[in-house]
Amino acid sequence: MTVGVIGLGLIGGSMALDLKRRGFASHTLGTESDPVAAEAAGTIGLVDEVVDLDTLVARSDIIVLAVPVGTAVSLLPSILDRVGGTPSPYTCPGVDKPVGGSSSNPQIVIDVCSTKEAVCRAVENHPARGRFVSTHPMAGTEYSGPWAAQPGLFDGRACIFCDAEKSDPEAVAEIDRLYAALNMRILQMPSAQHDMHAAYVSHISHVTSFALALTVLDKEKDEKHIFDLASGGFSSTVRLAKSNPDMWVPILTQNKDNILQVMDTYIEKMQAFREAVAAEDQERIRQLIEEANHIKKILR
Amino acid sequence: MTVGVIGLGLIGGSMALDLKRRGFASHTLGTESDPVAAEAAGTIGLVDEVVDLDTLVARSDIIVLAVPVGTAVSLLPSILDRVGGTPSPYTCPGVDKPVGGSSSNPQIVIDVCSTKEAVCRAVENHPARGRFVSTHPMAGTEYSGPWAAQPGLFDGRACIFCDAEKSDPEAVAEIDRLYAALNMRILQMPSAQHDMHAAYVSHISHVTSFALALTVLDKEKDEKHIFDLASGGFSSTVRLAKSNPDMWVPILTQNKDNILQVMDTYIEKMQAFREAVAAEDQERIRQLIEEANHIKKILR
Repeated sequence: MTVGVIGLGLIGGSMALDLKRRGFASHTLGTESDPVAAEAAGTIGLVDEVVDLDTLVARSDIIVLAVPVGTAVSLLPSILDRVGGTPSPYTCPGVDKPVGGSSSNPQIVIDVCSTKEAVCRAVENHPARGRFVSTHPMAGTEYSGPWAAQPGLFDGRACIFCDAEKSDPEAVAEIDRLYAALNMRILQMPSAQHDMHAAYVSHISHVTSFALALTVLDKEKDEKHIFDLASGGFSSTVRLAKSNPDMWVPILTQNKDNILQVMDTYIEKMQAFREAVAAEDQERIRQLIEEANHIKKILR
Repeated sequence: MTVGVIGLGLIGGSMALDLKRRGFASHTLGTESDPVAAEAAGTIGLVDEVVDLDTLVARSDIIVLAVPVGTAVSLLPSILDRVGGTPSPYTCPGVDKPVGGSSSNPQIVIDVCSTKEAVCRAVENHPARGRFVSTHPMAGTEYSGPWAAQPGLFDGRACIFCDAEKSDPEAVAEIDRLYAALNMRILQMPSAQHDMHAAYVSHISHVTSFALALTVLDKEKDEKHIFDLASGGFSSTVRLAKSNPDMWVPILTQNKDNILQVMDTYIEKMQAFREAVAAEDQERIRQLIEEANHIKKILR
């Protein structure tokens, strides 16, 4: 089984590493549009071969689209255009048996984007729609690029499959096995519902971190104070503010409606807190904190 | 050297543990007003002896006030009233030499509160003001109580001494040694400045986490979704929302003016983000994220 990863960043690189190490893929291919990152991915050895996009699409049994969501939306239809046949067998240098095209089924394409509705809509009526499985492995760090890839990144996390009823059941079963190799819990959800829940839980965390970083950088003119006074608490709360704009500008734009809704609720909660502090209303502050504490029961 | 800790929670308990383990204290005493916590502290062995407040004050060379800031403000003057002489020698059961009162200097009292102005003001003109050293060890977790105490909590973190010019130089030097035993970097700052910087960097992180938890709990009626969709990013951003209201209600009340200022800036930044998202202004969103990314250069 040959797995080809388009985009050798944090997510794509980490997937390639573990799929090979754990024996799901006998051979891995990767392509990366940024030449510096492409060279780094080769040097680090994230995949067996760094190749061009056409070669990757021709030779992979499973194609993983691990690029920012805007790029995924524009790239996915043209990749699906070329999918549907059995990939050409390929002999890996030094290995006798063919490593690509070993499956008798046509190729499968998956995406791993953080918003799903636009990606699914882009290929809604594509003749090869059945070969596409839309997935969101809920894992990551605030770092990006091939340098950030790490083994074990996905272990124990959830992976959401969206609109899976539009994918061939055989393709879904194969991608189930792929994520089982990454030790992920699989959940299914319509793409619209996914985008709403992702905004409510995950995307808002990034926005609040960005705003926190902007606030602290604005109020603390002396960076030394930030460094000196940054307790572990501040560091973990502001961690996501290190996230890459290449990834987050498209997410925030594509999931605009859901994100605006949750931002409005967030601003209301902040205002409620502000009013309680301004009024020195200790009972009200306590009530808000105790309500917030309820999150303990949900997260371990 | 006997160290007595008033309040055997996360901070007090962790200090007692390391001061004893690392040989700074030959004997540790603790007092705790909550009977369940007092029993737990004894069972866990955070201190050599759990005693009542009067016994602790009489027998300790150094008294650590590790209680919420409101309690510290009301308790500190009465403790300083009783300080100034050499503590009475005391023989530890099973040990021959006296373990309390071994120092020839009068006792020292320190507090470890997260806001400093009110504490310092409470004893500004106290005749024993010189025996008081106001400190803020910048360490902690979102957990509280004796169960949360842990060795090594303070290692490598900063500790702020406030208004140290009002303390006896000999007392400051002794407390310097105490925090050196905890592996802390010591900084000095006027208490008013401390409270401003603490609000700007540390306290606002707690408020944004509380607001995030309130938002997610409000929007996500189904707790299962929060659990399933909580990536590592959400968990770390919302971590501080588990913090104890007993500690945070007094901090937010006492440091009201600074906190309101930084909350207002935060709400402005959030509004700026909201406007950029609503307008789908990708350039502006990118600019805000890139500005926020600057925090990377300050925090490792």
